[in-house]
Amino acid sequence: VDLNLLGKNAKEASYELANLDLAIKNRALFAMAETLLENSALILQENEKDLTKATEHAISEVMMDRLLLDAKRVEAMAKGIQKIATLPDPIGEIIEGWVNADGLVINKKRVPLGVVGIIYESRPNVTSDAASLCFKTGNAVILKGGKEAYHTNLAIAASLQAALEKVDLPKSAVQFIEDNTRESTSALMKLDKYVDVLIPRGGARLIRAIKENSTISTIETGTGICHVYVDEAADFKKAVEIIINAKTQRPSVCNAIEGVVINRKIAREFLPIMEKSFCNNPRVELRADKEAFEILNQAKLASEEDFFTEFLDYILSVKVVENVEEAIRFINTHNTGHSESIITEKLATAEKFLNEIDAAVVYVNASTRFTDGEVFGFGAEIGISTQKLHARGPMGLIELTTTKYVVLGHGEIR
Amino acid sequence: VDLNLLGKNAKEASYELANLDLAIKNRALFAMAETLLENSALILQENEKDLTKATEHAISEVMMDRLLLDAKRVEAMAKGIQKIATLPDPIGEIIEGWVNADGLVINKKRVPLGVVGIIYESRPNVTSDAASLCFKTGNAVILKGGKEAYHTNLAIAASLQAALEKVDLPKSAVQFIEDNTRESTSALMKLDKYVDVLIPRGGARLIRAIKENSTISTIETGTGICHVYVDEAADFKKAVEIIINAKTQRPSVCNAIEGVVINRKIAREFLPIMEKSFCNNPRVELRADKEAFEILNQAKLASEEDFFTEFLDYILSVKVVENVEEAIRFINTHNTGHSESIITEKLATAEKFLNEIDAAVVYVNASTRFTDGEVFGFGAEIGISTQKLHARGPMGLIELTTTKYVVLGHGEIR
Repeated sequence: VDLNLLGKNAKEASYELANLDLAIKNRALFAMAETLLENSALILQENEKDLTKATEHAISEVMMDRLLLDAKRVEAMAKGIQKIATLPDPIGEIIEGWVNADGLVINKKRVPLGVVGIIYESRPNVTSDAASLCFKTGNAVILKGGKEAYHTNLAIAASLQAALEKVDLPKSAVQFIEDNTRESTSALMKLDKYVDVLIPRGGARLIRAIKENSTISTIETGTGICHVYVDEAADFKKAVEIIINAKTQRPSVCNAIEGVVINRKIAREFLPIMEKSFCNNPRVELRADKEAFEILNQAKLASEEDFFTEFLDYILSVKVVENVEEAIRFINTHNTGHSESIITEKLATAEKFLNEIDAAVVYVNASTRFTDGEVFGFGAEIGISTQKLHARGPMGLIELTTTKYVVLGHGEIR
Repeated sequence: VDLNLLGKNAKEASYELANLDLAIKNRALFAMAETLLENSALILQENEKDLTKATEHAISEVMMDRLLLDAKRVEAMAKGIQKIATLPDPIGEIIEGWVNADGLVINKKRVPLGVVGIIYESRPNVTSDAASLCFKTGNAVILKGGKEAYHTNLAIAASLQAALEKVDLPKSAVQFIEDNTRESTSALMKLDKYVDVLIPRGGARLIRAIKENSTISTIETGTGICHVYVDEAADFKKAVEIIINAKTQRPSVCNAIEGVVINRKIAREFLPIMEKSFCNNPRVELRADKEAFEILNQAKLASEEDFFTEFLDYILSVKVVENVEEAIRFINTHNTGHSESIITEKLATAEKFLNEIDAAVVYVNASTRFTDGEVFGFGAEIGISTQKLHARGPMGLIELTTTKYVVLGHGEIR
């Protein structure tokens, strides 16, 4: 694969996309959805190839489910694209405007990023989600999917390109890297000549590789070591329900919690209640610090590393602290800047936690599972940023745009 | 120098700064200004050391002037800090807020970035400018200045720290890396454990080194290959004045132009006028493409590389194009995404240029020299971003902040 040519074509396409009318963009999105449905049988056939290969490699049931497509899931992908078509277009908005002291008319206008690179892991619906979100915001996209979903992704990408050709738009607006190697992933990370922004969607190892190797501006997404802190003024019922929900409703996602932090004053009373409640739920292994270990019945003793680990599984670390100050210090040292929650009925403690925790989303008395673009009301989500530049927290359409100053003069010189 | 310790201390300080009252921050800024003035003689004495060393290395007059401090320039630095104290504080602003479908009260709040690293070249006033801008926005800062200004920068940084101690604030809010080597610069680029954002201020080589080596989110600033395009419908008087201003008013800065692009239909008429006008100004060497070369009297023939070079000198490339479409294509291929200007009286051509040029600031009938935070009206400037993530164009206080979602629940689970 000639990545340079691919990049060049994407850049060319991005110039055309940047000034497309909304009606034309939406027409193309509906064509994409339609073509996916028309090609459903073919896509499922290709998915079968990936599933067969996965079976040979004996991958886990969770991974198998992430990879699997059926007619209903293809339909859901098509519906997702149709929904994106109905969302308002952020492009072209004048965010602010003024006349400066020299008489220049300055307008700050919302424009596409240009070319977006997306590196992602197994779930094939990311192919259509990411492509349609980028397209809606006038960006060309270069996709590099996980090797497990290779055939499926190719079939989806080919359908999207066929739709673009049907409506006379450049098919290089959506490109999928067909080279199924790590080398092409590394090469994409260095394609700064053509790619404006790189968005990795995957685990800690992918994020680290990008930090170390990418020469492109990046938005880190998706690693979440999240906590619930149970304050001395907590409502125990809320605390237990929220901890169970945040840990077990879907442990494989980034907004699930990995640790509980507990105020010493209530630890002896609360921990046994929490442990008992986990019996009526999927079994959760507790890895406790020394103090909690002595209170709990069936916990293991946690290692130092456990407190820095994103388990993505039915495992929960438990840490006892002296007060909210120590809880904040502990969380700020061990988290990934994703989502944190305090359970308390005391206003001053809640305010302190909200102010001092360093994370994209900080909650009082709610599950961290709510950190999600759809749930927040953005209509769609391209990922959850855990960095501080450009976007922080759930990212919708606006986070796929940048701005440009458009300045009208009358011969002014300085 | 133990950069890890320095980073850890900066992170600690950043937590304290993040929630400081505006009054306390401003009091500290006034103390910084005062201490700079008190230490003026000492700072000038240290500056003398740097100047002596520079003389030994026979650096250029322009560089010498960038390095030189006198009582007036120290005073200007102090005034700069006082001005920053009078600017409104962006921290704490609720940018938007809503109740989502689950009943969660979601507020998006403006907060500091945390720890900002700044790598910069010779001008010592950047030390006090960058430190006070970061401090005002509640960020801890780690500064790495150019080796030419080493003694001067140290003296300035020491004064700022002394002021912080006077008002009982942690002096690690402003830290200067005393190790005067490239190794410490490289180490700072990898301090992602503590540094949230890195802002390089310098030439293309520094920017490239950061792209290739930094593991920290970066805001690229300050490389500018800017152009003026003279359209067939241009007012020649405006065109000549703007070109002279944009090229010669201060050729060493990033918003000066490096190239003129000219519509073929007016090239024979306009180029001789432009060439003649340069006689009454500092002499400008013209490096022309073949077509312009044949029209001009004293031009050199440009190499392909000339069109990709930021001269930062009295040199100007000249390119003849067929129409505005070719001008846009040429500029988008050769620019650095900084500032571009079209000279035209025709509305449709102006609109096309504004829409299709890929740059932070696009002008009609004005000099590119206006791309500047103070000129735009931001009250101060930390640099000019040429990237698309987070900030694009002149950056004021707001660009030194990020956001945090603060969510109030009532026991909600998903």
